[in-house]
Amino acid sequence: MLTAAGVETDLILWLNLAATFGFGLSGGLAGVRARLDLFGVLVLAAVVGLAGGVTRDVLIGVPPETFRDGRYLVAVGAAGIVCYFAAATLDRLGRAVLVFDAVGLSLFCVTGASKAVAFGLGPAQAVVLGAVTGVGGGILRDVLLREVPMVLRSELYAVPAVLGATVVAVAHEAGSDRGAWALAGAAACLLLRLAGVRYGLHIPVAPSERRPPDPDA
Amino acid sequence: MLTAAGVETDLILWLNLAATFGFGLSGGLAGVRARLDLFGVLVLAAVVGLAGGVTRDVLIGVPPETFRDGRYLVAVGAAGIVCYFAAATLDRLGRAVLVFDAVGLSLFCVTGASKAVAFGLGPAQAVVLGAVTGVGGGILRDVLLREVPMVLRSELYAVPAVLGATVVAVAHEAGSDRGAWALAGAAACLLLRLAGVRYGLHIPVAPSERRPPDPDA
Amino acid sequence: MLTAAGVETDLILWLNLAATFGFGLSGGLAGVRARLDLFGVLVLAAVVGLAGGVTRDVLIGVPPETFRDGRYLVAVGAAGIVCYFAAATLDRLGRAVLVFDAVGLSLFCVTGASKAVAFGLGPAQAVVLGAVTGVGGGILRDVLLREVPMVLRSELYAVPAVLGATVVAVAHEAGSDRGAWALAGAAACLLLRLAGVRYGLHIPVAPSERRPPDPDA
Repeated sequence: MLTAAGVETDLILWLNLAATFGFGLSGGLAGVRARLDLFGVLVLAAVVGLAGGVTRDVLIGVPPETFRDGRYLVAVGAAGIVCYFAAATLDRLGRAVLVFDAVGLSLFCVTGASKAVAFGLGPAQAVVLGAVTGVGGGILRDVLLREVPMVLRSELYAVPAVLGATVVAVAHEAGSDRGAWALAGAAACLLLRLAGVRYGLHIPVAPSERRPPDPDA
Repeated sequence: MLTAAGVETDLILWLNLAATFGFGLSGGLAGVRARLDLFGVLVLAAVVGLAGGVTRDVLIGVPPETFRDGRYLVAVGAAGIVCYFAAATLDRLGRAVLVFDAVGLSLFCVTGASKAVAFGLGPAQAVVLGAVTGVGGGILRDVLLREVPMVLRSELYAVPAVLGATVVAVAHEAGSDRGAWALAGAAACLLLRLAGVRYGLHIPVAPSERRPPDPDA
Repeated sequence: MLTAAGVETDLILWLNLAATFGFGLSGGLAGVRARLDLFGVLVLAAVVGLAGGVTRDVLIGVPPETFRDGRYLVAVGAAGIVCYFAAATLDRLGRAVLVFDAVGLSLFCVTGASKAVAFGLGPAQAVVLGAVTGVGGGILRDVLLREVPMVLRSELYAVPAVLGATVVAVAHEAGSDRGAWALAGAAACLLLRLAGVRYGLHIPVAPSERRPPDPDA
């Protein structure tokens, strides 16, 4: 997808694998906290690491790519095993895991959007697929653990993904698929996500619901 | 699908877009009520408006059609924004939204069944796909909001969709794919759904469970 | 998939239909217990009987096979109707239903793995797809009924499926796709699953969580 001049394909592959591993840590840790067994922890790591990309490919209508490439399975398997045996250590590295997750989000949103335009889908679809690739895994994680998905109700998590994907989609519409735009989109996503974490930004609920939260809601 | 003599293709497209918008309103309102943020409300609108058709196409084994056509994304995006800013107004139009939703159900069940027979699937598959197209979005909405899907446990909602799809499947088996049968199926679905709402019809739980509901269930 | 010398194709078909029916019983009973209506019971039966195989085919990137073959729809429909009208009788046959389910798991894990290698996927993918085919339906059943999936947190359920799929994948890597290996894999899965039920085996939660369970968790 991102093989344009100036972008090292190997670099993209390794970044993607690192992002998948980072997302896998997020899923595996959630599984450990929910007291799942080893199999459950591995499933959660795989779901968060792979589900966004699989959903993207199903929506495009092509066989899921990350599933076919065994290295991605190795990445999520390793993430799950690390979480299972070293959850306490990962907790002490809390902020590092958060940064890892933000890097994953940034890479996934631009690879999702890049793949959409490469398959001839329009800019709106590219933005949606970028967001789906970035946040799909986290939504499925929360559904499996019986929670209303975090990304739908709090934190500035989806908006950075939409921003990153929009950079790619707009550049494509303007006639350029250069890898530099993908890097710019990823950087924009990463900065906005980290700023959101740092300053506690979030987008509001609907005007009609802006009362003090119900204490037993 | 429904281009047979006497049916205006443009009309079908606009009805489908209207149905998608109506389903989007249903999803968006549920998102507002669950105190999701703007992104969450848009996701819920998209899920209810598009997931049934996407699931249908995945089960047939073709790239999801409504996702490729940007107009459907516009329809669910508009529905989500309307819900976010005007949820209170929509509440006052409660009955109108219900009718909109019933029209959407009626159109989706017959387009789902028509697409199944057009791709050579059998009558049982056509009925299942008609139902999936009609109720799939609502099931996913309830899963995301952490509720046992309404359509699986109460109200006469799926049966009208099955009826509408059955009309199309039976007509196809009898040798006719005329658009008039699709319209007849949609009308049958719409009438049964509205009668169900009006008279509070529902289908019973299993005989073994017909005790007074457990107070802490 | 399993047409190799010495394995009767008709036998495999009937075993697959029996497994689908058995999984359908498991889903339908869960639906009856959750006080779903007849439509909900049928949906649960279909989900548990078919979702694993559908997910496997989507991950491979081919149209879902069991959905196209009307006999599988008949099997899950029959299972749903039996559950709806005879749930009390099935409860008295509790152990028989459990064995039925274990047979289904055994067959599904080897047919999933066999299909993966037949489509040229690697051994890791074959094991994952064998597990997905075996446990996917049960996970979706629990999500629809708003429970953290049983298979992710307790009982020795996924490990037998992984074992059965591994036998097929290893045999394929070693150069043999003979049906006898599929039967051996299914037998290994069945034995381990029944031993797990008999002796209450389970795999542990992560070391960091091995405190006495929280009483209100």
